Amino acid sequence: MGPAATAEFYAKLIRRTPVTRDQDHLRVAIWADPTVPDRVGAVLGGTTDPYPAMLEGARRLRDLGATVAVMPCHTAHVFLPALVGDSGLRFLDMVGETVAELERRDGAAGGIGLLGTRATLASGLYQNRLRAERFDVVLPQETTQWQVDLAIKKVKQGNPRAAGQHLDNAVRAMARTDASTIVLACTELPLAARHLTPAGGPELLDPTDLLADAVIRECRGTPPATDGYRAG
Amino acid sequence: MGPAATAEFYAKLIRRTPVTRDQDHLRVAIWADPTVPDRVGAVLGGTTDPYPAMLEGARRLRDLGATVAVMPCHTAHVFLPALVGDSGLRFLDMVGETVAELERRDGAAGGIGLLGTRATLASGLYQNRLRAERFDVVLPQETTQWQVDLAIKKVKQGNPRAAGQHLDNAVRAMARTDASTIVLACTELPLAARHLTPAGGPELLDPTDLLADAVIRECRGTPPATDGYRAG
Repeated sequence: MGPAATAEFYAKLIRRTPVTRDQDHLRVAIWADPTVPDRVGAVLGGTTDPYPAMLEGARRLRDLGATVAVMPCHTAHVFLPALVGDSGLRFLDMVGETVAELERRDGAAGGIGLLGTRATLASGLYQNRLRAERFDVVLPQETTQWQVDLAIKKVKQGNPRAAGQHLDNAVRAMARTDASTIVLACTELPLAARHLTPAGGPELLDPTDLLADAVIRECRGTPPATDGYRAG
Repeated sequence: MGPAATAEFYAKLIRRTPVTRDQDHLRVAIWADPTVPDRVGAVLGGTTDPYPAMLEGARRLRDLGATVAVMPCHTAHVFLPALVGDSGLRFLDMVGETVAELERRDGAAGGIGLLGTRATLASGLYQNRLRAERFDVVLPQETTQWQVDLAIKKVKQGNPRAAGQHLDNAVRAMARTDASTIVLACTELPLAARHLTPAGGPELLDPTDLLADAVIRECRGTPPATDGYRAG
């Protein structure tokens, strides 16, 4: 739903698909409607409901013949169960893919830090599923959340470099907690993360990598190894 | 039609749209069907006709409610007049935008070099319109075209850095001709051009910048100034 995050997800899907020529790539239809009302405001309460516009988009993709759909937006995953039911379209679930990956990596001794919009965090989208699997979840403090809000805003304004500074502040604050892995639970954050200075500290996990690999696995075969990156 | 070029065009459209929040962006539908048969082989003769698949894509976009359409693929512009007639969809013309920009810059003393697929060059797509406006057109020699073919192939294989080396060789060869401006007349080439070492020499003109700005102008208002880059 965030246009820059959508473009980056599409580019990532292409980069992670093993090919030797154009015709090896997946057939992709994108419905990018940035006029969908703000998801964060709606989840936190009070602003225009984005769901009718989201359902309309899902129906358009279904009518185009999509067999598998994804939403590269965490906050929008709050609406996923309703969307699957009402559109009849099969969606892959970015939150589910992330929790499954963290379970595969269960050697991780410390906690799982979450950075995302206030709406994603307030909804319990990740925490409920992580705690059900007995992960220790570390949430940002208010001053850290403020840095995350600014990082997301700067990406949406087309300034990923400034966003990187704010994300860096947030990651440094999380590095002082028990978190050994930080989930970038907002699809704008990986765009900011490209501008982090690599350093020690918690590992950053990008759920959009996992979602892209899930699409490739579902539609085509086995994806390549995950590109990991560290910062802190 | 080349997936990497399509993703880059979408990212460019977003970067060049002046916004302060998601909702300021354009509503975009993308139909990316990499199974469309090879355009170069078809134009040069003998291989499967891509036109039925292209027309099918145009009809899908029309049925989704598109009011303006673009194809970020130069070779595919050979089919543009037929596509406009058969789909009833309004397309912006990347070749027309490029010729118009070159006319605006008519201070350019030297010739216009063209780098593109063998099909784009063999079709006369650019040369006919440039010569009608009395531009001096400089075409690559066979050894230079070979470097262009490799640059395009490497982008399609997901290796833009190797592509940059081949494009660098081609640009250096063109710098020894009368060309003062080089049109990157294949949408894979700007992805390779990011990996050129900036230097003096002919100015590189990227028609996808002009096409993105034409979309923004048509749909929204005035685009920002063109990002130029030089290499040679």
